[in-house]
Amino acid sequence: MSKGILYTVSAPSGAGKTSLVNALVKSSPEVCVSVSHTTRAMRPGEENGVNYHFVSREKFETMLEQGAFLEHAQVFGNLYGTSQKWVEDTLKSGLDVILEIDWQGAAQVRRLMPDTVSLFILPPSLSALRQRLTGRGQDDQAVIDARMSEAISEISHYVEADYMIINDDFTVALAQFQALITSQHLRQSAQAERHAPLLQELLP
Amino acid sequence: MSKGILYTVSAPSGAGKTSLVNALVKSSPEVCVSVSHTTRAMRPGEENGVNYHFVSREKFETMLEQGAFLEHAQVFGNLYGTSQKWVEDTLKSGLDVILEIDWQGAAQVRRLMPDTVSLFILPPSLSALRQRLTGRGQDDQAVIDARMSEAISEISHYVEADYMIINDDFTVALAQFQALITSQHLRQSAQAERHAPLLQELLP
Repeated sequence: MSKGILYTVSAPSGAGKTSLVNALVKSSPEVCVSVSHTTRAMRPGEENGVNYHFVSREKFETMLEQGAFLEHAQVFGNLYGTSQKWVEDTLKSGLDVILEIDWQGAAQVRRLMPDTVSLFILPPSLSALRQRLTGRGQDDQAVIDARMSEAISEISHYVEADYMIINDDFTVALAQFQALITSQHLRQSAQAERHAPLLQELLP
Repeated sequence: MSKGILYTVSAPSGAGKTSLVNALVKSSPEVCVSVSHTTRAMRPGEENGVNYHFVSREKFETMLEQGAFLEHAQVFGNLYGTSQKWVEDTLKSGLDVILEIDWQGAAQVRRLMPDTVSLFILPPSLSALRQRLTGRGQDDQAVIDARMSEAISEISHYVEADYMIINDDFTVALAQFQALITSQHLRQSAQAERHAPLLQELLP
């Protein structure tokens, strides 16, 4: 069994990141998505261990002190983090792991695990982005403007990614994502690890 | 139009390299194979400009002096070389180019064009390799042994490649090759070049 590969997937809101990741995981049984820890309250319909690992602030801060998180962030006063032990155990079991995080989280992960492959997903145009962020037309212009400006700020970090997918046609974008996952396993070092017995036989 | 990507594909005889490359090119109109120059005589059924560019030794040596070859080699007294101008023009036109060459040629190409992506194809086992090199059972053991030893020597250079494919199931190997080609175009720098207008629009 060779080790899995760790991916960070970042995108501005409205780029369709979550739909793409969900479709990829559904089509690829050897890939899974990390479930984050969070201190925010569980919402109706959410399940502990599925949407998030819901923990108290005290528990989260203890884990933080113990260096248990590969990355963490505070959003609207709530803490979110990715368990390093879970990621490492899952990779060791041979599965690939996807972390859906913003550019800051991706940068934290790369520092601790430099072999991480980072992917950035972009919307196909400014108007498509605006349309996806406008919602059902019931939001204030100020709210929409704030979302747009946050999205543009995230986009400005695309240069830090290893790979980039433009989510114009969903089917094409998904096929590209699948090709990326396949090709990462073709890297010489990964293949040499996976096929060590073959290489041993060919080059005794 | 963004620039194409240059690939070297190396393998021991008997790994099925040429069949794989031919199937890939057939399925991918945006990928083509370089046609080498050679000083060897044209064989029945061969076509100038298709199988090789057949040139005189004098012409080849003049081209060599002019630095016209990205790589060249002498095999059984005949010279073979890859035209740098043709490769560069084809890449500029947006097509990907595959060079089918041995590890020494691949090393020469990487020195001149460091962005080259190198792929190594391996047979699935020693016995499969021996079977493919044994031919129709009409060759001397000494001839077969020489072929095997040459193949093993080529295989020993697998570590120099960026990517590796094990040609066990041809359909799987072809799909992996296609995924590699797709994923190389997803590299951040290639995508930023190809989608410069989009990035300009999103980040004015």
